[in-house]
Amino acid sequence: MPPGEFEIIERFFRAPAEALRRERGDVLLGIGDDAALLQVPPGVQLVAALDTLVEGRHFPVGTSPDSLGHRALAVNLSDLAAMGAQPAWFLLSLTMPEVREDFLEGLARGMLRLAQEHRIALVGGDTTAGPLSVSVQVLGLVQSGTALQRNTARPGDLLFVSGTPGDAAAGLALEMGAAPGSETTAVQQQWLRQRFLYPVPRLALGAALRGLASACIDVSDGLAADAGKLAQASGCGVRIDGERLPVSAALQAQLGGAALCAALTGGDDYELCFTVAPARVDEVAARLANVKCQVACIGVLEEAAGVRVFDRGVPVGFDLRGYDHFSAAG
Amino acid sequence: MPPGEFEIIERFFRAPAEALRRERGDVLLGIGDDAALLQVPPGVQLVAALDTLVEGRHFPVGTSPDSLGHRALAVNLSDLAAMGAQPAWFLLSLTMPEVREDFLEGLARGMLRLAQEHRIALVGGDTTAGPLSVSVQVLGLVQSGTALQRNTARPGDLLFVSGTPGDAAAGLALEMGAAPGSETTAVQQQWLRQRFLYPVPRLALGAALRGLASACIDVSDGLAADAGKLAQASGCGVRIDGERLPVSAALQAQLGGAALCAALTGGDDYELCFTVAPARVDEVAARLANVKCQVACIGVLEEAAGVRVFDRGVPVGFDLRGYDHFSAAG
Repeated sequence: MPPGEFEIIERFFRAPAEALRRERGDVLLGIGDDAALLQVPPGVQLVAALDTLVEGRHFPVGTSPDSLGHRALAVNLSDLAAMGAQPAWFLLSLTMPEVREDFLEGLARGMLRLAQEHRIALVGGDTTAGPLSVSVQVLGLVQSGTALQRNTARPGDLLFVSGTPGDAAAGLALEMGAAPGSETTAVQQQWLRQRFLYPVPRLALGAALRGLASACIDVSDGLAADAGKLAQASGCGVRIDGERLPVSAALQAQLGGAALCAALTGGDDYELCFTVAPARVDEVAARLANVKCQVACIGVLEEAAGVRVFDRGVPVGFDLRGYDHFSAAG
Repeated sequence: MPPGEFEIIERFFRAPAEALRRERGDVLLGIGDDAALLQVPPGVQLVAALDTLVEGRHFPVGTSPDSLGHRALAVNLSDLAAMGAQPAWFLLSLTMPEVREDFLEGLARGMLRLAQEHRIALVGGDTTAGPLSVSVQVLGLVQSGTALQRNTARPGDLLFVSGTPGDAAAGLALEMGAAPGSETTAVQQQWLRQRFLYPVPRLALGAALRGLASACIDVSDGLAADAGKLAQASGCGVRIDGERLPVSAALQAQLGGAALCAALTGGDDYELCFTVAPARVDEVAARLANVKCQVACIGVLEEAAGVRVFDRGVPVGFDLRGYDHFSAAG
């Protein structure tokens, strides 16, 4: 007989989670009661995000459970990074068709490795039989009044992005069986896959941007779409200069002339897209000196609504809409 | 073309959610940014619960979306009730195979009706295409140091349960096509169904028990199993006197001699099961005078581990294990 739902949490998640809870000291009750009981320090505000990964939608059938565990937590941490918040605790709701020990070991390993890195405690959740999906809910803290928002940019603010967007989409394509480009080395292929399988939530960057960035959003549905959401929420539009986009050598090798399109529209990057007032642009380099993550200025917020992309001054015409789970083909 | 995922949240949930957020005044950012930003008042602790309902597991295929919306929130509120906490905010992760407006209208109506009743604000979430499931994450607050726990009962403490357990299981059976008992009136059948479709989270009861109950748990997997969990977490065992169980007239009519079994093992009750030290039992009636919910003393905590059930002094032998999603038949 397979282990039941209570033993699942117990066996694979409880011991490592318990160690992290002890280390934090602010988890009064964790896994094992009806709800978690958490101590919020004074002077902070609470930040909460909930994201679900569904098999066949957010990850291909057959994705390694280690990557799935990592991604399910990482995509939520990315939401907190976009707010400039520090993650503290998370809850896990796991739905899976059957109990497979190797799967659960891998999932717990990938998830708790990332949790350990950021000292976040797993404090509750549930497991159910059903089609494979993983819901994670992350709770974080931010010093009162300092959270980054997406709706606070102004026309004239400069637009930045971290990392090299588009890699994850190319990595997912490789995972799904796309042919490697003739120029793409094996190391580059592996690197692109890793960019999809193990996204790095930009928590240190988000924290460093508090008090400097005028607005921030994480790039999950494609850079152009998410920059557009930031602009729209702020009541303005945005111009992106394609030639300024930081395109990785691996993406360039893999996609050649299509690399720009992937960088603008590919999903799953989990980079940060943020704005800085012109008068404060000189502060960016100093502020980010200790953050291990490159950023590039790629455009500017404008009065007129909409997203306008240029490549060396020529308007770029392809579809810039972000990924939409219900409108997407397939 | 069906509406996309951003419009879904926008159209069906945002306006009513916005009204509740304004009313509360502690939601600094709700739906529409990367994460919710929430103001936690001083002197409280945070309580967090996450539960997922999966079609075919937690509710039958064809369940009304209004009931599904209610239940997805209610089961989480029940977890907070068991802690004696006051719910404040919730997040929703909705996975569904296709966008159907009537379905979403019903789901939002059922969920937001209950949210309005308890003045809880929807502050975030996501929607995805996939097999139907609803994850809700509730955040609540409790005055520091007063939360109820399940692991703090002592041998000799008296065991109580609220409401009339077993009704929901009988109601689910009717929903699944079971034949009504020959004694069961149409009104009783409808009442039993409602007990499954619209469970009432015992928030006022939980709040009233703070400082009085020595331990508390909510009854979701069956009374005997959940009383057993409370006892085990507290390092003791429990004796339940079956003849003291409050069995509803409807359940009695529907199941006759099997009503006791349903009351002990039926799931989905979302009643509270709690313990009170013998010296304080006299306080129960006064404390609960303003709570619209009957409670009954049904047993006692004992030194010896395990769950022992008697019916007028005779040991009851049937399987007392609670519902387990992976071990359950089917």
